[in-house]
Amino acid sequence: MKFKKALIINISEDKLDPIYWKKLDNLVENKISLPKDSPQIRKELSDADCILTGFKIDVGKKEIDAAPNLKYVSVLATAYGKIDTNHAKKKGIVVSNVPGYATESVAELVFAVILEKIRDISKAKKIGVSGDYSEVGLIATEIKDKVFGVIGLGKIGRRVAEIAKGFGADVRYWSKNRKKDLGKSGIKYQDVDKLISSADIISLHLAETSETKHFLNKKRIDTIKPGSLIISTVPNEITDLVALENRLKTGDITFIMDHADELDPKDAKILSKYKNCIIYPPIGYISDEARIAKQEIFISNMQGFLSGRPQNVAS
Amino acid sequence: MKFKKALIINISEDKLDPIYWKKLDNLVENKISLPKDSPQIRKELSDADCILTGFKIDVGKKEIDAAPNLKYVSVLATAYGKIDTNHAKKKGIVVSNVPGYATESVAELVFAVILEKIRDISKAKKIGVSGDYSEVGLIATEIKDKVFGVIGLGKIGRRVAEIAKGFGADVRYWSKNRKKDLGKSGIKYQDVDKLISSADIISLHLAETSETKHFLNKKRIDTIKPGSLIISTVPNEITDLVALENRLKTGDITFIMDHADELDPKDAKILSKYKNCIIYPPIGYISDEARIAKQEIFISNMQGFLSGRPQNVAS
Repeated sequence: MKFKKALIINISEDKLDPIYWKKLDNLVENKISLPKDSPQIRKELSDADCILTGFKIDVGKKEIDAAPNLKYVSVLATAYGKIDTNHAKKKGIVVSNVPGYATESVAELVFAVILEKIRDISKAKKIGVSGDYSEVGLIATEIKDKVFGVIGLGKIGRRVAEIAKGFGADVRYWSKNRKKDLGKSGIKYQDVDKLISSADIISLHLAETSETKHFLNKKRIDTIKPGSLIISTVPNEITDLVALENRLKTGDITFIMDHADELDPKDAKILSKYKNCIIYPPIGYISDEARIAKQEIFISNMQGFLSGRPQNVAS
Repeated sequence: MKFKKALIINISEDKLDPIYWKKLDNLVENKISLPKDSPQIRKELSDADCILTGFKIDVGKKEIDAAPNLKYVSVLATAYGKIDTNHAKKKGIVVSNVPGYATESVAELVFAVILEKIRDISKAKKIGVSGDYSEVGLIATEIKDKVFGVIGLGKIGRRVAEIAKGFGADVRYWSKNRKKDLGKSGIKYQDVDKLISSADIISLHLAETSETKHFLNKKRIDTIKPGSLIISTVPNEITDLVALENRLKTGDITFIMDHADELDPKDAKILSKYKNCIIYPPIGYISDEARIAKQEIFISNMQGFLSGRPQNVAS
């Protein structure tokens, strides 16, 4: 069985490798690909039985109601906040997303940016390339024996904690639900406020929800231990950026983030003034392995739906 | 008890932090500090009962015989190849060195330089600083599931293997002596030639001896798997640099080294032409923690000798 007509919104060919683009031909009879603001979307929805879409694209009540034949929406992303899953459910439409494809990619990036900072790697590489083989002026500290706080022990947080254990850090976590399976791992639970005020390194791994907005609030930011390193590979909404700026001014903490593309340009301009705020492009999710896994799951979700075994159903 | 006169050769004050320099006063009555080529050394040796010296400083038969009161030589380094320990032993002189102070510092650096390379970190940081928040053009791969070969499973090699396990790599090692205590660790022994030809990442951890000179010879270099990353935090003598250059020309491997200061300038000039040869300054050993441990052990070695319990005796 195949979909009769898939409306593909904002998945330009560069988001799907040619091999997966080709695989779509086995699953869809007729493909219509449009950018997200195209006025044609409404017309093309009228006979589409499938929508394939990317990150943060609206598929609300209006779009769903404009597609009387719609059976399935497949999101090529983990987040699906812009899909009205309640309304879809009411109309018997299945929505699927792609969870967990970048667990290792994000977890490894956390250590890449920590080690860059604490071993002065960019500077060391640059002076090495210039032919200067002196270590004078380069700073270096170790991860071993540092108090390493993981906030949010989901899939990514757990891997970060495990890798930090490999480095010999004193790993402590806080998570909404205390985990029962960590007995022998040496990864210890700690109250969140105590953890924030005592950790040498803090890695944030909370999902974005109404509860977690400004989780890192002024009170918590002000209690971060001087000299600490905070790594945020989560949405910027988790952090009160105004309070962060005030703390950055003191120069006694370093904040590293990789969701620069989602920063308000005004915030980006303010934060990028501080040398102790290191802003990376969004490179947490981009490993080759993650890109392949993401597309494999996306195609597999479609195959599952077509064969009557929907998977990764988002609701 | 104190030493009556310590001749301090080539330990300029910047190698000993002021706090340790001060601790020497509790151990030595009279300190004479000279650079390594000073013509005064011979004269000052005549009544010295102690020599304190650094990395690669000659204390041969000539120097030992010029110091009839000499009881003790303390080396502020791991390597002591320039000390004639046989002749010292014959004359009842104890020599001590500082082993293992930088185990974690070197092991962590291995991952810092791997992650810099496979996550394009210097480039990502640079474009982030410039305010470009696009990930386009940045490369990224993961350590997880890669075949990670550790050559030489001494203290540092073992920590590298353990950290790589934390990352979820398929860790294999070769060492002169097969280890019996790795059963549950998942770190597997493999024949060296098979390991070199099958690993995605190779980290070298052999000590420099007459046996290990050009251990990575032309035959082995030519069998390295295309696409592999080789990390050398060991002396350059371990690698046949001519054969390495020939392989680098093909562009299909990447070689990362941190012993640039010990490279022959001619070799440095040749190797630095290749983008796939990343030459760092000697930053493996320089963490704050390693610097402190090194000086603590150095002072403790002296205290041990003075109280009749010599430790870290080099022979």
